[in-house]
Amino acid sequence: MPKNNMTLLCDFYELTMANGYFELGKRDEIAYFDVFFRRIPDGGGFAIAAGLEQLIDYIHELKFTEEDIAFLRSKGVFSEEFLAYLADFSFTGDIWAVPEGTPIFPNEPILVVRAPAIEAQFIETFVLLCLNHQSLIATKANRVVRAAEGRPVAEFGSRRAQGADGAILGARAAYIGGCAATACTISDRDYAIPATGTMAHSWVQMFDTEYDAFVAYCKMYPTNATLLVDTYDVLKSGIPNAIRAFKEVLIPQGITHCGIRLDSGDITYLSKRARKMLDEAGLTDCKIVVSNSLDENIIRDIIRQGAQIDTFGVGERLITAKSSPVFGGVYKLVAKEQGGKVIPKIKISENPEKITNPHFKKIYRIYDNETGTAIADLLTVFDETIDESQPLELFDPVETWKKKTVTNYTARELLVPIFKSGKCVYDAPHISDIQKYCRAEVDTLWEEVKRFENPHRYYVDLSQKLWDIKHDLLVNRGNTDAKD
Amino acid sequence: MPKNNMTLLCDFYELTMANGYFELGKRDEIAYFDVFFRRIPDGGGFAIAAGLEQLIDYIHELKFTEEDIAFLRSKGVFSEEFLAYLADFSFTGDIWAVPEGTPIFPNEPILVVRAPAIEAQFIETFVLLCLNHQSLIATKANRVVRAAEGRPVAEFGSRRAQGADGAILGARAAYIGGCAATACTISDRDYAIPATGTMAHSWVQMFDTEYDAFVAYCKMYPTNATLLVDTYDVLKSGIPNAIRAFKEVLIPQGITHCGIRLDSGDITYLSKRARKMLDEAGLTDCKIVVSNSLDENIIRDIIRQGAQIDTFGVGERLITAKSSPVFGGVYKLVAKEQGGKVIPKIKISENPEKITNPHFKKIYRIYDNETGTAIADLLTVFDETIDESQPLELFDPVETWKKKTVTNYTARELLVPIFKSGKCVYDAPHISDIQKYCRAEVDTLWEEVKRFENPHRYYVDLSQKLWDIKHDLLVNRGNTDAKD
Repeated sequence: MPKNNMTLLCDFYELTMANGYFELGKRDEIAYFDVFFRRIPDGGGFAIAAGLEQLIDYIHELKFTEEDIAFLRSKGVFSEEFLAYLADFSFTGDIWAVPEGTPIFPNEPILVVRAPAIEAQFIETFVLLCLNHQSLIATKANRVVRAAEGRPVAEFGSRRAQGADGAILGARAAYIGGCAATACTISDRDYAIPATGTMAHSWVQMFDTEYDAFVAYCKMYPTNATLLVDTYDVLKSGIPNAIRAFKEVLIPQGITHCGIRLDSGDITYLSKRARKMLDEAGLTDCKIVVSNSLDENIIRDIIRQGAQIDTFGVGERLITAKSSPVFGGVYKLVAKEQGGKVIPKIKISENPEKITNPHFKKIYRIYDNETGTAIADLLTVFDETIDESQPLELFDPVETWKKKTVTNYTARELLVPIFKSGKCVYDAPHISDIQKYCRAEVDTLWEEVKRFENPHRYYVDLSQKLWDIKHDLLVNRGNTDAKD
Repeated sequence: MPKNNMTLLCDFYELTMANGYFELGKRDEIAYFDVFFRRIPDGGGFAIAAGLEQLIDYIHELKFTEEDIAFLRSKGVFSEEFLAYLADFSFTGDIWAVPEGTPIFPNEPILVVRAPAIEAQFIETFVLLCLNHQSLIATKANRVVRAAEGRPVAEFGSRRAQGADGAILGARAAYIGGCAATACTISDRDYAIPATGTMAHSWVQMFDTEYDAFVAYCKMYPTNATLLVDTYDVLKSGIPNAIRAFKEVLIPQGITHCGIRLDSGDITYLSKRARKMLDEAGLTDCKIVVSNSLDENIIRDIIRQGAQIDTFGVGERLITAKSSPVFGGVYKLVAKEQGGKVIPKIKISENPEKITNPHFKKIYRIYDNETGTAIADLLTVFDETIDESQPLELFDPVETWKKKTVTNYTARELLVPIFKSGKCVYDAPHISDIQKYCRAEVDTLWEEVKRFENPHRYYVDLSQKLWDIKHDLLVNRGNTDAKD
């Protein structure tokens, strides 16, 4: 598959800061950065991590070409020594990440980078773009798929995607979130997402009559004939012509598996009428596919009203996550190494929600051994371990008097090693296994967390040690400035 | 610059339909398709066309590779004859389009394709994706830029873009819409969009004190020092440290041009306080840059409240067009050629707004010669011409009794030839000329059309001849079916 060198897909300030670190002798200082997000799209109870595999590709391909160096030289702000350094640049650090398909929650690291300052800083833009985009779409897809209650959902949005990658990798992320298929052919070729499709209105218009168009299609694709019935008039023309074509072409061949697609009008009403007409014609195996600006809210509502739908095609509102189209992952310095010691760092802010969780950390997800349910995530300092044979006390990091003691639990570490000293140490699972893992992990969440509106907030707690460190840094305003 | 073959970025149904046309001997029937949109994002009064240059690249690079053919063969639905045809496939048709940067309106063709049926159908997905994405962002950027009332707006959104192209081409589209710069380095290298930047919070955190970080930056970039002042405390720490650094490093060198950036908190309040503190320190040339989830609504509001801001950095809400993230361009068959004659086609729908304007058409934009103002767009049949020496009667296509006669006008044809028989015949302007053209064309619109909320609807009318043809097709339900 064709790959692109995306090295210069970076905010320009990554380069001016890198140049600064280089000139000031800070290039080899080891820095730790966390990727985390602050708000779940659509007010949901959890998000789905995605995009890691493309991030791994990006790190592998990181390289400033001669053309890049010439371009940067033309900007007139970089020293020749720095440009020479860039010509040999590669990523030599460590990366840990939460596996794709994992349910994730605000304010916990979904990716951690430990690397020399320039390298760690430089990759910020692409790391965020990659994880933000696919996590956004996987999260949205998971909402849509859950709303469809077992009916397959196909991703149909390429034409309304925000750019080519929006379509191609959006289809990948949608599949991770639970979609059964995509319309996007290249996503099948490159990422093994099953491509599927029916027909456009133009097919119908290319023939003298709608009936001719349907007959021609049934003859071409007898085992996969889904006819679009709304080019002229669904009930008076589209469905009667489809029934006639199915009966004349498919039934004599013993084929009963076929379909119609509705793409406009009142989907609930039309699908009920269509079901009745098809059943009365003996076409009980004929499936009804619907599309037309669907999302999880519309799907829940039309199912509630008894719409007769077998498959959903979801386009623009999924591929752009229309109702909440930004995944706000950020990339923040959380520690530095000095003399071999890890020194925690914090970013304070006028907006309390923008204050970071400092330090090089681990995440443990705590599962109840009896029910298999995920109870809480616990952030700890990197050198802490959890002894599952002992009771575990969890407390709310803001309302610290709210405590809970857990026994008979499993503590699973969520962050797994991806790169060690610049070498990839991670075997990415097959995309279909990522989809299965995602479904299984979502199943471990409380129903209250999975509610579409006003879900229960899942607990993301800090260990006592981490809480104390954060509290000290806040009291001391993060650095020595405020003490002057 | 690296380019990708995006041939398989197509909905799978384009291929199954193509296979059908091929088998049924319809491959050489000439079809006409229009691209048009139905609703202006954000309830605005106009959109901005963008994306044509990348569409031209796509058409040039259209080619099924051996790998593509092997992949398609593996799907088991295409004949070997068809696959052999694809191996030699290229676009041999004609394309007309509205130039990038043109204000555009619902229900008028912004691109017209005339080509053998398979070719015309096949390019649908990418044509739409390309124009939808960039037109969406150019339209949003134009709103943001107009809200800023002359203050420069920089596009800062790469990290929240929906995929790499969302960032790279989003920056291009934002520039067409009027942004002065981008943070995205690769958009500068590949599309000549000026890249710019300041510093991240991590720069400040990498030093022992905020003051040390600021001094180091001023020494590195004395002529371009914009210091981020909100890592710890804007008023108590950030601005005092910035003032101290400017005075110690820049002022002795005679440099008064510098800047601070605010990225959190109450921007209006903080910018006023910052301006006062900077002015009192004699730093009247110090610019105030702000970022933090801005869009056109927030910008209008904080300007109204007297915020002291020189430059806006706009990120996620611009690069995803967050408040209205879908541009709904569609691709509809409007005519076929039979025996050398152009036969108009229509798509009827249960949703009246989904009924198409049939036929191979022209668009004339009618400008008032006295004021230079754009009065209306007039869609005509392809063989009509407008005699500017004669009065022109315009009428509303729905409320047909509403009429207006125009004299002393210029009728400019908006659709210009892009491809003729598969050859590109269009010289794309330089991106900075597209930006200038966009600004000039927006200036021709009535103020009422440029209103942010509840703008006046710009007139898009049909010629009498076109209206009669559409009316006949509607009465006859589009094809001969309904007459049976």
